[in-house]
Amino acid sequence: LARPIITLTTDFGSNDHLVGAMKGVILKVNPDAEIIDISHKVIPYDILDGALTIAQAYRYFPLRTVHIVVVDPGVGTQRRPLLVSGDQHYFVAPDNGVLSAVYEREERLTVRHITAEHYFLSPMSNTFHGRDIFAPCAAWMTKNGQSASFGDAITDYVKFSLPKPKTADGVVKGVVLKVDNFGNAITNLAAEDVPQLLSANTKFTLTVGGKPVTRFAQSYSQGEPGEAFAIIGSSGFLEVSMNRASAAKTLGVQRGAEVSVEIGS
Amino acid sequence: LARPIITLTTDFGSNDHLVGAMKGVILKVNPDAEIIDISHKVIPYDILDGALTIAQAYRYFPLRTVHIVVVDPGVGTQRRPLLVSGDQHYFVAPDNGVLSAVYEREERLTVRHITAEHYFLSPMSNTFHGRDIFAPCAAWMTKNGQSASFGDAITDYVKFSLPKPKTADGVVKGVVLKVDNFGNAITNLAAEDVPQLLSANTKFTLTVGGKPVTRFAQSYSQGEPGEAFAIIGSSGFLEVSMNRASAAKTLGVQRGAEVSVEIGS
Amino acid sequence: LARPIITLTTDFGSNDHLVGAMKGVILKVNPDAEIIDISHKVIPYDILDGALTIAQAYRYFPLRTVHIVVVDPGVGTQRRPLLVSGDQHYFVAPDNGVLSAVYEREERLTVRHITAEHYFLSPMSNTFHGRDIFAPCAAWMTKNGQSASFGDAITDYVKFSLPKPKTADGVVKGVVLKVDNFGNAITNLAAEDVPQLLSANTKFTLTVGGKPVTRFAQSYSQGEPGEAFAIIGSSGFLEVSMNRASAAKTLGVQRGAEVSVEIGS
Repeated sequence: LARPIITLTTDFGSNDHLVGAMKGVILKVNPDAEIIDISHKVIPYDILDGALTIAQAYRYFPLRTVHIVVVDPGVGTQRRPLLVSGDQHYFVAPDNGVLSAVYEREERLTVRHITAEHYFLSPMSNTFHGRDIFAPCAAWMTKNGQSASFGDAITDYVKFSLPKPKTADGVVKGVVLKVDNFGNAITNLAAEDVPQLLSANTKFTLTVGGKPVTRFAQSYSQGEPGEAFAIIGSSGFLEVSMNRASAAKTLGVQRGAEVSVEIGS
Repeated sequence: LARPIITLTTDFGSNDHLVGAMKGVILKVNPDAEIIDISHKVIPYDILDGALTIAQAYRYFPLRTVHIVVVDPGVGTQRRPLLVSGDQHYFVAPDNGVLSAVYEREERLTVRHITAEHYFLSPMSNTFHGRDIFAPCAAWMTKNGQSASFGDAITDYVKFSLPKPKTADGVVKGVVLKVDNFGNAITNLAAEDVPQLLSANTKFTLTVGGKPVTRFAQSYSQGEPGEAFAIIGSSGFLEVSMNRASAAKTLGVQRGAEVSVEIGS
Repeated sequence: LARPIITLTTDFGSNDHLVGAMKGVILKVNPDAEIIDISHKVIPYDILDGALTIAQAYRYFPLRTVHIVVVDPGVGTQRRPLLVSGDQHYFVAPDNGVLSAVYEREERLTVRHITAEHYFLSPMSNTFHGRDIFAPCAAWMTKNGQSASFGDAITDYVKFSLPKPKTADGVVKGVVLKVDNFGNAITNLAAEDVPQLLSANTKFTLTVGGKPVTRFAQSYSQGEPGEAFAIIGSSGFLEVSMNRASAAKTLGVQRGAEVSVEIGS
């Protein structure tokens, strides 16, 4: 039998004992669990950033992995804790939309409101449900495999729409969703939103931060020193990048910046 | 048999190979060990910060977990390496007080001076006992379970008193012990030091950084935008917090800042 | 049978899902693999920094550990992916010199150009071979142990010379290779390059950043407050350090700074 795997995606950072305490709770329930950090550097309180982070990573994990996602500004209120069963993976998270990108990608889903308090840590705090609810529930899920024992299925869970590209007058408009560790400005334009860019010799003007980008590259190292270019990144989205330098810093672009692509001229 | 668990709490940061080398040493001795990072962002050389970090996390781990704690400005001197056996956990650390909060919490303890050099890495450096002494000793402890084989019990180990709240003229005075990733200013006032705050409708003035805080909240999201409030955090201590913002930054408060609480207008 | 161990050394940082995705890919191929982070904070695109990081850590790991090293500015170009078999360890990395320090240390090596595309993730990106090539190849290597199945041995792999100390007119000249988390300025002068320093009472002047250092210490805590001193660090190289303070910051020294040591007066 393969080892049960639990992943963690949070906005807790790495300066504190918080993530360590969650891991202890998991291992006390299921000492066989393999715990994998996806990221603890989600922008604090930022549900969209959390939603994007888990969406980029979860499908690479084995069947039956349980993904804990804790970006939880409403901790201690009436917002519900959820156990979500997809086709191949499970998710444990607050009901605040942080799984919205998972809901978009997964065809069949059961979303349960976790009410089985016997799985919770006791005593329970009002401020750290990552440790007191989400960690032990994920660990019990790997141990007993009984998703129905956690609570009833619901349909009115919180889901927000991810920002979508818009096309008008031949101009495709989108937004920078994230700036990564290398300064690549990752947009919400998928390759299929701008198919002409991928053909050699298509003339286009991408505008971001008021600056024009007119070259499409197949790999980062094709860029000339100091040149910003467009490229399809590893998640299938258009990025504005530079060769061995930060495009975001050079162009003065941050998360949320508008991007437009005009073909021709 | 459950897998042996070893946790790591250090001030090594994550930029270097140091933590990786410790993990290699552990796995070479005991390839079955499960290694869990609690934090490597203890403030460099800061024994109090290390003591608080391990104290908040260790008790969530399973029985017989071995906790390595390396905040060790005296590495290479005569300060002793220790193996500490508590009721449920083991600790491997330098004898400089970094386990003081563990000594306060654990009722029964055996503190041993590690002298069994055959467990050490050879050759041994003067500057990295995390790799050369603490990692292999923790790994051997998970392997042979023979704490007495590491050295004799001692009673004159280094222990400092954690800063305690003081009450005079109805004013409770304490200190900010830590600012966490969300900007919560965590004090050394436990819930039982200020019991009246927890009752609804008690009037009080908490003063920190020269600013008054007069509201007690049950959850972070009860705070109005821009409002600092008091709350009991997940370790049972009073925090000064804000809803989706950094109270510490907004109030200009850092670790070490004085806090006072006066009940009644 | 001992669990297979895979280590990760990258310049991906910890803000993104990148490392998490690599771990998912590994576990999907080999759920028994134990994955250990050495560092994800290699200076972005810096092949020398990556080469030094893996060189300081790999030999502490058990026999047959597979080390993934991804500092890969040429991803998506013709640069080859490699599987390197040393006496005790395996390495998976791009053929750009990032294993140069491993090549220097290992006496017997087989370097293979990975061409067995059936091991790769499909579809494969042009921008993230850490996830699409290096992670799955490392995982398959731990699973089948058949290094020859990955591709043919080559001899024209990329190798650069690490910066070496030079001696002229009795002065030994070197360079700062790295500044660590504590502000120690680690040089490329090995203990054997400056044997006189290690004898008590040798007079010497080490110059770095235009400032003279004239004392050799056996441990960090021997330094007086504010005093910079020379010491042999845990990897056997000369460091310029201070007691509980950052020598690099105090002396205004960064990576790449020249260091000279003159014995006598």
